[in-house]
Amino acid sequence: MSSMPAQDQILANAVRALSMDAVQQANSGHPGAPMGMADIAEALWTRHLRHNPSDPSWPGRDRFVLSNGHGSMLLYAVLHLSGYDLPIEELKRFRQLHSRTPGHPEVGITPGVETTTGPLGQGLANAVGMALAEALLAQEFNRPEHEVVRHHTYAFVGDGCLMEGISHEACSLAGTLKLSRLIVLYDDNGISIDGKVEHWFGDDTPKRFESYGWNVLRDIDGHDANAVDQAIAQAKALAEEGKGPTLICCRTVIGKGSPGMAGTEKVHGAPLGAKEIEATRAQLAWAHPAFEVPQEVYEGWDARERGGQYQAEWQARFDAYASAYPAEAAELTRRLAGELPADFGARMQAYVESTVQKAETVASRKASQHALTALADILPELLGGSADLTGSNFTDWPGVGAVRAGENGLQFGRHINYGVREFAMAAIMNGMALHGGYLPFGGTFLTFSDYSRNALRMAALMKQRVVHVFTHDSIGLGEDGPTHQSIEHAASLRLIPNLHVWRPCDTTETAVAWQQAVSRPASVGMAVQEGGPSALLLSRQNLPFVARDAQAVAGIARGGYVLRDAPDARAIIIATGSEVALALQAQESLAAKGVAVRVVSMPCTNVFDAQPKAWREQVLPKALPRVAVEAGTTGGWYKYVGLEGAVVGIDTYGESAPAGVLFEHFGLTAQNVAAAVEQVLNQENPS
Amino acid sequence: MSSMPAQDQILANAVRALSMDAVQQANSGHPGAPMGMADIAEALWTRHLRHNPSDPSWPGRDRFVLSNGHGSMLLYAVLHLSGYDLPIEELKRFRQLHSRTPGHPEVGITPGVETTTGPLGQGLANAVGMALAEALLAQEFNRPEHEVVRHHTYAFVGDGCLMEGISHEACSLAGTLKLSRLIVLYDDNGISIDGKVEHWFGDDTPKRFESYGWNVLRDIDGHDANAVDQAIAQAKALAEEGKGPTLICCRTVIGKGSPGMAGTEKVHGAPLGAKEIEATRAQLAWAHPAFEVPQEVYEGWDARERGGQYQAEWQARFDAYASAYPAEAAELTRRLAGELPADFGARMQAYVESTVQKAETVASRKASQHALTALADILPELLGGSADLTGSNFTDWPGVGAVRAGENGLQFGRHINYGVREFAMAAIMNGMALHGGYLPFGGTFLTFSDYSRNALRMAALMKQRVVHVFTHDSIGLGEDGPTHQSIEHAASLRLIPNLHVWRPCDTTETAVAWQQAVSRPASVGMAVQEGGPSALLLSRQNLPFVARDAQAVAGIARGGYVLRDAPDARAIIIATGSEVALALQAQESLAAKGVAVRVVSMPCTNVFDAQPKAWREQVLPKALPRVAVEAGTTGGWYKYVGLEGAVVGIDTYGESAPAGVLFEHFGLTAQNVAAAVEQVLNQENPS
Repeated sequence: MSSMPAQDQILANAVRALSMDAVQQANSGHPGAPMGMADIAEALWTRHLRHNPSDPSWPGRDRFVLSNGHGSMLLYAVLHLSGYDLPIEELKRFRQLHSRTPGHPEVGITPGVETTTGPLGQGLANAVGMALAEALLAQEFNRPEHEVVRHHTYAFVGDGCLMEGISHEACSLAGTLKLSRLIVLYDDNGISIDGKVEHWFGDDTPKRFESYGWNVLRDIDGHDANAVDQAIAQAKALAEEGKGPTLICCRTVIGKGSPGMAGTEKVHGAPLGAKEIEATRAQLAWAHPAFEVPQEVYEGWDARERGGQYQAEWQARFDAYASAYPAEAAELTRRLAGELPADFGARMQAYVESTVQKAETVASRKASQHALTALADILPELLGGSADLTGSNFTDWPGVGAVRAGENGLQFGRHINYGVREFAMAAIMNGMALHGGYLPFGGTFLTFSDYSRNALRMAALMKQRVVHVFTHDSIGLGEDGPTHQSIEHAASLRLIPNLHVWRPCDTTETAVAWQQAVSRPASVGMAVQEGGPSALLLSRQNLPFVARDAQAVAGIARGGYVLRDAPDARAIIIATGSEVALALQAQESLAAKGVAVRVVSMPCTNVFDAQPKAWREQVLPKALPRVAVEAGTTGGWYKYVGLEGAVVGIDTYGESAPAGVLFEHFGLTAQNVAAAVEQVLNQENPS
Repeated sequence: MSSMPAQDQILANAVRALSMDAVQQANSGHPGAPMGMADIAEALWTRHLRHNPSDPSWPGRDRFVLSNGHGSMLLYAVLHLSGYDLPIEELKRFRQLHSRTPGHPEVGITPGVETTTGPLGQGLANAVGMALAEALLAQEFNRPEHEVVRHHTYAFVGDGCLMEGISHEACSLAGTLKLSRLIVLYDDNGISIDGKVEHWFGDDTPKRFESYGWNVLRDIDGHDANAVDQAIAQAKALAEEGKGPTLICCRTVIGKGSPGMAGTEKVHGAPLGAKEIEATRAQLAWAHPAFEVPQEVYEGWDARERGGQYQAEWQARFDAYASAYPAEAAELTRRLAGELPADFGARMQAYVESTVQKAETVASRKASQHALTALADILPELLGGSADLTGSNFTDWPGVGAVRAGENGLQFGRHINYGVREFAMAAIMNGMALHGGYLPFGGTFLTFSDYSRNALRMAALMKQRVVHVFTHDSIGLGEDGPTHQSIEHAASLRLIPNLHVWRPCDTTETAVAWQQAVSRPASVGMAVQEGGPSALLLSRQNLPFVARDAQAVAGIARGGYVLRDAPDARAIIIATGSEVALALQAQESLAAKGVAVRVVSMPCTNVFDAQPKAWREQVLPKALPRVAVEAGTTGGWYKYVGLEGAVVGIDTYGESAPAGVLFEHFGLTAQNVAAAVEQVLNQENPS
């Protein structure tokens, strides 16, 4: 029998007990990380983290990210113990349908959960995004004697997070930008699912992070809460000096407390079993039944009183700021609430109308830059960037400054050079959106959405308002060849639930796409709304402007609309982006032959699908046969053309050649579109 | 005017001239990297690389990977100059349709190109795979006094490759496994597309690679071919001592030779222009017209004679080996040719038939492990692994050994613990397939195919025979929740051209899926065949065995077949994987109501689509209305059910709950499938 544990160990043991018991009750889950990191959590949550369980979303709070999200019970336990609205009944319902304790932490489901984690490495990149947003907001809004933005971002990470490539991308950028108020605690337990990591993960991790310009606190005993406490204090002191982000390397034993399984992979992702749980209770000297926690332990964790004080202190600072700088305070309040400016609607609509007047023929990536230039003025929260393709994605605007490491904190700018780091860019954007205060967008080539794909999915799952600018959207990019030519990407992105994928055909559709993307509701803190991310698929090559009446302009926002109708149309051509021009040419050549067809532009199938049935049937009347044309895979279009329709597209890889040659080579021509229409009509009415 | 350059500089300048002239002629491309790395290329290609232009695919050659693939003209220039079958006319047709000089290097198009590169970081991971294959083959086949496998793998990488996360994943593993014969030359020019990398890439790269256990040769002058030569010699000496992989950091000037643009991002990705080309010619003292190379320069580069000697030496070693170890030599020859064993067909078919006899109800991931256990014996080249989910993916088999770093070279095994590195795993598998000698497969959860997606695409583009085992293939994984539940992934993987996606419904379909996946032709060296990769989507939960006759068993290989027919069927239910059981239940309940339906199992839509029309119409007769059921996004199924059909699926994210609860919650039930059939029939025949 162990001797009576010290108070901090008792608090940590409450986390261990709740974790092992909840996993046992759910008959699934991951006890190892919560039991291994319990002491670290105790040190951070009871001694450093500035949070208020009674108001989980107050803007001045520290952010906490559990990047090793499989350890969700750790987070649920400390949230419950600290006084969040997460009663013990919810812990008993761990991993059950519609509980507030899902298998992995989900923002918007559980108060105090700042981001959804589980896909490894991304939480760490989210944390980098949060720290970046905090540092930029501080530069933008703080005034002498008025520091209204100044908090820390803490993240817990495991071996898995640090093996993932995104950890390299995100931490390299965080080091370069010297994000000093980012403090990461590494659960260095030497075990991953397959066993002892030394056989597949031999990194000298402290040295690796030093190579990124991080401060590294080595060899901290992760089961000595005082040692962890001191390390966090040291990291905060380094942050005060602007020394860059800090990694605290904590040596831990996975599943600490389990006499039979601690230190082995067996404790990672399965219940301990009743017998081992009993033995663990004995070893921990934790005599309480499952889900029972003594009052004095609750009192030791309870963060409500000091949380209220933290928040009151911040509120007083904010009130003083609001007196001295009322305009700034109002703007910061608006921005943190994720609301658009009052004049947004009118000004954006005026911009859309200006594109109709100007009738420019440019590449849609260039049309996007024009829209951005207008938007940058309307939306100060718009914060752009590119994964090292700024001059190709056109994600900057005249006069925009770049974010840079500075002598006294970050040098403010509204353009981020993310470097060649597509995945981290997307996850950092998610982190900034989650933090609040910015509306992030970022660019790369459409094909490289493959690299960032899971972060787009996470944005959609978390309902975060971010915008991805994917240029060079088809074989139209030309000579770079098949590695760079998206074929399946438009279709494939459309499959991600809640991601709006826009492929505009000209300047007006591009302007509306931006309008719709930034108008999706922002989800801030716990207030997760029915918004989400958007992707704009844009051409490298020029696209002819399409004249359309006001009704057609208004239709764009519905995702699919009649672009150019014909009386007594016998068929419909559906097209997107650069292929709309082919559809219109085919319409003309068919008209010359006496075959009247309607052209439907469908810049966003996701938004079109969500329209009322009346709109969808008005645009695509049941009786009319259809042909779809898009320079990409055909499979997704049968949903709109049916078994009797036809799709003109590309189901093989591209080739390296000039764009015009390729459109001919792959049969993406007005002639082929017209021929497909005639074929479909002949089959409908066999002579 | 510069003084007359030394011989090695003249050789390098030929590369510079060809590169800038070809880019100029194509009016697109990337002159910066070729001009910056010309001296490094000269040192490697004329003094170290063991290759034979007359036989680009001989197994004993060193492998060379241009990971910064946008610098393709560097590779085309050295291949041309060295004597490969790449005439000057092809350089003049740089980036034109069906030339042998596409925008980025493509294996199978250009002799001497070992892998297709362009998507940054992946070439480096391919090189790790090649070095791993070489080290494993050496352990497996070399015998005392008979080293038939012993060559180096060289890679050129730029800043972009090293910023990408996959470089971390791949190089961390390469360091841990001590792949000593991997030598990487880093083009440290300080410039990426957006400008000076110091603002977004502040890494101490040498320190970073030391943290991975690499040897790092720092501060090599990349324009001093002798210095590079010595560094390579040193790296080879370290390899002899088994000291792990080596990074040679070469300081270079991007676009070296261009007086007006060298050292700036302007020279990265656009033609220099006629005037700057003229100035560059003068600075380089290169007086020859475009595409003209003096005979003595050709002679300086010509590698045919020594290449023939290298190959002859290797052949003599191999012949001696074949005399001493005829069985091993025959086996190695077979393996390097990518041919299946002579008895493969019969033994695999016997295994398929054994599943029919056993009629086991197990999870398809378990069925896959059973198939693997059989295959491991039939195919010694089968080399498995998992991204740290071995015990969940079931990618091992009884008694399999693990690959480990060893005292004297790699410790041989047939299972690789890739660590939590999905993307690198996939790209390393590609590298091993490209090297030859192994048939790699690897596992992770289906949802995390997002992380590796572009490497799957590259395998499909390169027609490489690799197999991805993606388990936990739907909401059926249960409590891990929406972050881990694939929804859009089956549909989305099917969109990748030339990737075969199998979602088997029971042990027999799983066995056939493996049979078909490993039977796709292997592409070895230049002999790129019409093969490609496969993905197996497998359940966590048990799937009931489906009794079927021999005709149905034979139909599985066609991707879609009539699993259970009914006389006078009035409709068809199409299903895959775990939902086939629902389809069969619905069939029964409908039969009880007097509604006869056919059940079609469609484990691989890609293979089904490639069947002759007669087969497709026999399975899916035009007259019959259809309902498809799959626990995933519905959009892709309209290709088979049309506008009048119905799809039972899930178009939102999953939830965290036990699997059974989720299937009910999302309406994935036999009852709903039956109701959908009745609805479709009623709409067909309105009463």
